[in-house]
Amino acid sequence: VTVWLNGALVAADAARIEPADRGLLLGDGLFETLLCRDGRPLHASRHLARLRDGASQLAIPLPWDDDTLTAAMTAVLAAHREPASLRMTLTRGPAGRGLDLPTQPRPTLLITASPPAAPPRAPLRLCIARSTRRNEHSPLSRLKTLNYLDGILARREAVLRGAHDALLLNTRGALAEATAATLFVRRDGVWCTPPLADGALPGIRRALLVAHAGAVERTLTVDDLARAQGVFLANSLGLRAVAAIDDKACSALEGGLLDRLASSTDRRG
Amino acid sequence: VTVWLNGALVAADAARIEPADRGLLLGDGLFETLLCRDGRPLHASRHLARLRDGASQLAIPLPWDDDTLTAAMTAVLAAHREPASLRMTLTRGPAGRGLDLPTQPRPTLLITASPPAAPPRAPLRLCIARSTRRNEHSPLSRLKTLNYLDGILARREAVLRGAHDALLLNTRGALAEATAATLFVRRDGVWCTPPLADGALPGIRRALLVAHAGAVERTLTVDDLARAQGVFLANSLGLRAVAAIDDKACSALEGGLLDRLASSTDRRG
Repeated sequence: VTVWLNGALVAADAARIEPADRGLLLGDGLFETLLCRDGRPLHASRHLARLRDGASQLAIPLPWDDDTLTAAMTAVLAAHREPASLRMTLTRGPAGRGLDLPTQPRPTLLITASPPAAPPRAPLRLCIARSTRRNEHSPLSRLKTLNYLDGILARREAVLRGAHDALLLNTRGALAEATAATLFVRRDGVWCTPPLADGALPGIRRALLVAHAGAVERTLTVDDLARAQGVFLANSLGLRAVAAIDDKACSALEGGLLDRLASSTDRRG
Repeated sequence: VTVWLNGALVAADAARIEPADRGLLLGDGLFETLLCRDGRPLHASRHLARLRDGASQLAIPLPWDDDTLTAAMTAVLAAHREPASLRMTLTRGPAGRGLDLPTQPRPTLLITASPPAAPPRAPLRLCIARSTRRNEHSPLSRLKTLNYLDGILARREAVLRGAHDALLLNTRGALAEATAATLFVRRDGVWCTPPLADGALPGIRRALLVAHAGAVERTLTVDDLARAQGVFLANSLGLRAVAAIDDKACSALEGGLLDRLASSTDRRG
């Protein structure tokens, strides 16, 4: 297994993250997950733009240009037999203790590939998370940061309750998103998804479904789920139908719909 | 510089965190910061108890007993000329991609020492953070996790606004704490501190000040700051007087008060 770390391709078991890295010590960083096809990452320019925007908001330097990063991703993919996804992780790098930003940051950038997951399973059973809520008051709800523990807690709750995944409410009680995917709910014949102000991450797939598949942003509540004409989750890796939420069945989706939405958004530039 | 990593003392520049560590990739872990005196960490048993409690809540294994961890801390301290503080960092360790808990976790435990910081400066100037809020709806607000980006954002805002540190409001607009310290406000002749339900971390120093110095838990608002008879911040490393908040001066503290509170709580078992 080969990874790209700060400019060099290295064997994963030789790649070393320093114990003083603020990504490890403080969750001080960002990441992107990219779907790959035929040795190429999809929507690389959109992912790189989001990473750059997040780095700018957090004042983390990103001293590699897009050509370098694209070549790095291609090289990591070429070193794997059957890569299915790539992850780019950017941290503020090693520094002394405390929260103040280092005056001479040495950011860490790590690119890794993952093999395909198990083939898509049956439609998902979801629960509404009781253990935690998404904080729509924090700009972090709109950035793909390394601070993922609320999602981990909600996913764990889902598994303990016999579900595959959980939907998170925001602090006002509106729906925000699933632990690692955007929520789409069919209401009045329109696919609706929570607005960013409700705590939704600005997902790449989400943006494509809004721009090219007629989805609209709308505040959604648990009551909307009961009356929905269909529910699915979407992230960069794919779309998944939802069969039930808190043990109440959801309306079945039209056959082939998700495949069509997935391939049409995969193909978009 | 020597660190303790998963059972062994190693040179910091040889210590290797794996790129697949969930502490790095997802902020999936906890930490403790301990003040040290005469080669010994203060309140080690309280810090270890809090670490164990947090690990239990997050279902992260902690397969070292207190004697082993105490000996590890002593060994790290002995390897340093003038250690001022210790940090213990526990993560869920390396795993494959995704949020689901690994079935065979290999947790990472890292113990590092830091030299003394610059000597205590003048009383602090604080601001009320506008950039983010603390999420009192999440159990993470009551755990010392690696998800520290809200605090980093608020600290950065403070520095940009000419302050030393920021106070964070919770999502309801009550005061929660500073970026890395508990808030104490003198009202009606009593030292008050926000309750855990308002988003305050259950700090070790905080508990000692409540148990042994007459401080009480009380919901505090920005209005309370204007009428306060004194304000200070406290964490395991020490107590700091607050001179001004959002450019409004705070009442001066009685001379020697913080030194007395610090030494009396440092000494407690």
